[in-house]
Amino acid sequence: MDLFVERGYAHTTVGDIAERADLTERTFFRYFTDKREVLFSGSKVIEDTLVDVISSAPKDAPAFELVANAFEVAGAELQGRRDFSYVRARYAIVSEHAEVQERELIKLASLAAAITQALLARGVSQPDASLVAEAGIAVFKVGFDRWVNAKKPGELATHIRAAVDVLKAVMAAPPQVARTQRMSTKSK
Amino acid sequence: MDLFVERGYAHTTVGDIAERADLTERTFFRYFTDKREVLFSGSKVIEDTLVDVISSAPKDAPAFELVANAFEVAGAELQGRRDFSYVRARYAIVSEHAEVQERELIKLASLAAAITQALLARGVSQPDASLVAEAGIAVFKVGFDRWVNAKKPGELATHIRAAVDVLKAVMAAPPQVARTQRMSTKSK
Repeated sequence: MDLFVERGYAHTTVGDIAERADLTERTFFRYFTDKREVLFSGSKVIEDTLVDVISSAPKDAPAFELVANAFEVAGAELQGRRDFSYVRARYAIVSEHAEVQERELIKLASLAAAITQALLARGVSQPDASLVAEAGIAVFKVGFDRWVNAKKPGELATHIRAAVDVLKAVMAAPPQVARTQRMSTKSK
Repeated sequence: MDLFVERGYAHTTVGDIAERADLTERTFFRYFTDKREVLFSGSKVIEDTLVDVISSAPKDAPAFELVANAFEVAGAELQGRRDFSYVRARYAIVSEHAEVQERELIKLASLAAAITQALLARGVSQPDASLVAEAGIAVFKVGFDRWVNAKKPGELATHIRAAVDVLKAVMAAPPQVARTQRMSTKSK
């Protein structure tokens, strides 16, 4: 990451990275499939945390609450592992380079698949499991985005929880009910 | 798509496609940036439909209902434009080829961005607009998936609406409330 910041992502080669890390290129490719992958070294940890939290929760915990909570835990862990300056620099690279953004989208899709599997293993049915997993990814993406771009970032987990609360609120307002309520209030 | 089905996606070249369509390769590249893009020729229509429905809705329509409805309209339009055999063949190619799946994920991300912009233009605030857009993508993805894989597919819009209802139900069950309700029912 230091190298990417110094030279720019596009101007840094795998050779540069290997040299800085005191590795041969061959060793580099044992750990990473390509240059992009360096930016996603933490994604397996996030996936493991999410799956662990979901798998070990009390049996009757509602699926979405469970996944939302798992993302809060994973968010706190991510924040504990990385400096905010690293996170911001990484975010800038992902935003600027389409091919890195592609890799990010694929990682999120495989995260959704892992969450879906963990929910199915708990006996959650389909399409509930897939929808809860996608909703979890949505609150993580939006919470993360607001955290990275905040003037006073604070806790990532707080931003994720805020996104959960907003999503619940916007989902809980069907038009018919809202209109009926308004009408019945008027007629009183 | 005929060619992809006949020869396999991997074994079809841009030259083959241009020949079949009676075009020069140069003309092909005026319409499509690459081979993958042929599979996404309908994505601009979907985006335009979604944005139109969202932009022209009554001013007080709740954001998520609006987006869910826009996806039902876009789904019906998509179904009207393509044979189910085309849709299934395309789905198989996307599932089998990582680089096509990448393109699909990018198209969905730019769809989410367009929906977010249309909601912001209506005065919906952030992060509500982004979350509603992501939730819309979630119900579209899951609804589409179930439609393509159903034995009796029926209407895509019906599958999207079913996904909307399931997502609302799973989001509406916070653990405390669920438990309190169960307890108060017992104590009656």
